[in-house]
Amino acid sequence: MTQLSMRDQTTELFKAIQSHICQALEQVDGTACFKTDEWKRTDLSGHDGGGGVTRVLAEGAVFEKAGVNFSAVHGLMPADFAAKLGNERQETKFFATGVSLVIHPRSPMVPTTHANWRYIELGEQSWFGGGSDLTPYYLFEEDAVHFHSVLRGVCDKHHPDYYPRFKKWCDEYFYLPHRGETRGIGGLFFDYLGRDGQTDLNGLYRFVHDLGFAFTDQYIPIVERRKGAEYGEHERQFQLLRRGRYVEFNLLYDRGTHFGLQTAGRIESILMSLPPLVRWDYCPSMEACSREETLITTLKNPRDWLV
Amino acid sequence: MTQLSMRDQTTELFKAIQSHICQALEQVDGTACFKTDEWKRTDLSGHDGGGGVTRVLAEGAVFEKAGVNFSAVHGLMPADFAAKLGNERQETKFFATGVSLVIHPRSPMVPTTHANWRYIELGEQSWFGGGSDLTPYYLFEEDAVHFHSVLRGVCDKHHPDYYPRFKKWCDEYFYLPHRGETRGIGGLFFDYLGRDGQTDLNGLYRFVHDLGFAFTDQYIPIVERRKGAEYGEHERQFQLLRRGRYVEFNLLYDRGTHFGLQTAGRIESILMSLPPLVRWDYCPSMEACSREETLITTLKNPRDWLV
Repeated sequence: MTQLSMRDQTTELFKAIQSHICQALEQVDGTACFKTDEWKRTDLSGHDGGGGVTRVLAEGAVFEKAGVNFSAVHGLMPADFAAKLGNERQETKFFATGVSLVIHPRSPMVPTTHANWRYIELGEQSWFGGGSDLTPYYLFEEDAVHFHSVLRGVCDKHHPDYYPRFKKWCDEYFYLPHRGETRGIGGLFFDYLGRDGQTDLNGLYRFVHDLGFAFTDQYIPIVERRKGAEYGEHERQFQLLRRGRYVEFNLLYDRGTHFGLQTAGRIESILMSLPPLVRWDYCPSMEACSREETLITTLKNPRDWLV
Repeated sequence: MTQLSMRDQTTELFKAIQSHICQALEQVDGTACFKTDEWKRTDLSGHDGGGGVTRVLAEGAVFEKAGVNFSAVHGLMPADFAAKLGNERQETKFFATGVSLVIHPRSPMVPTTHANWRYIELGEQSWFGGGSDLTPYYLFEEDAVHFHSVLRGVCDKHHPDYYPRFKKWCDEYFYLPHRGETRGIGGLFFDYLGRDGQTDLNGLYRFVHDLGFAFTDQYIPIVERRKGAEYGEHERQFQLLRRGRYVEFNLLYDRGTHFGLQTAGRIESILMSLPPLVRWDYCPSMEACSREETLITTLKNPRDWLV
């Protein structure tokens, strides 16, 4: 049997992770199913540029909108974007495959989550990137601890530096400077792993494999714990306001969103990350010492959850 | 009597335009009043950086959210941003005053509108910029014609080239490349007027003066004509989806928003432009030959409204 190329191995892996996650989410939702859209992409050069499979669950009992996108695209990256990624300022051949997901639950007691794992080749370089993070509307510390514990468990199997390094990177990346807030209570973020040529890509493949299949352990127990919790209109409105921050981050700062828009990705698959319903109020008021204020204080002061 | 400096003249003008517009909007709304927030700004240098007066009307009978912001700020512009504006890449002294407004009506039959007029000094250069544009959810051609007619009337009093030039600039500026759509049915957009040192700033001042005071003639008759029109849940949901495009434009592309965020402006005053309630659906469906489709076809093919 011939050894698969890293492109083929990662493509198969990400397809399998997508199926695994969608199945688990359907089960916990109990009513709604994912719809599947296969799409093709034309590269900037006008040639076949790969494609993907977008799966979206909408209007479920538990999930208001959940999108799990797989893609494997290739072609020419625009010169400016190649330069931003540290390459020469010239059109450069690339290949990118990954899974990207965002889950917006209906209840404000259940946190939103995002995850992405990707493998990229650009010119002569190859690397892995990804991560996952949790965005609660109401903070339950045990949920944050659980989410981080699972992540640390996977990291520690691969390298003792991974968890502290990628946890910190996550707090720095998912940050809204104009609000002085992190997007949520963090998780992991990493990029360019293996690009230096020093780190074995096969080892990184196994790391990303383990993270992808651990996602449901990270998130589903939190959903199960919170999905029945009571809430009212006050909590719902706070959730809608906080979703506005999510939109601000994704459109103003997120590299993945900008990468997609600038490499002529499929718009509906890129922007499926945006929440279903969102509010912006001018100067919303907040009660002192309320649960809403506790959340925001936490977002302004990133914590170590595993001390 | 001493002649006022252009800084003082424009500052007074923009305050007067703000009052004029707020008064007219309160009158047509009939129930809600503008609240007023005065704010001060600290410059990047740590010194006094000017300030402004933000006026917001929320939850009115006609207007769901209307914000009319006046500001007059000064200080040091970051090197990168100065370079983007065509200056040397070094921290540069600036002064900027203007009015900026966005009106989100409650009824999807009443269009959203945005306007901005500004006077800027950067290093040795001075210029005027601004414009206004209309974003309908349901297209009434007579409204588009009315809006553009008033704008052409003002332009033609000042220069025969202004209307065609700034109308085209508006279609180009308020454009979402990832959607292949203009934000609305256009209006005027202009920038850097007078920066070449060739055009008399006093003449430009009178042009901006006339545009500012014509705004109510442009917009209020349309509101009066449409505010009583019937609509249902279907039209409301379409409005919420289209408001998503407004958010995408403002956060992904709008120079004014980015200018504000990068010059440490007051966040709540900058982002008051965002609509009160917004939806994003994945791949929303649209009936063939519906009014919704007519709108989108129009936004994909900018028209001359005054032929």
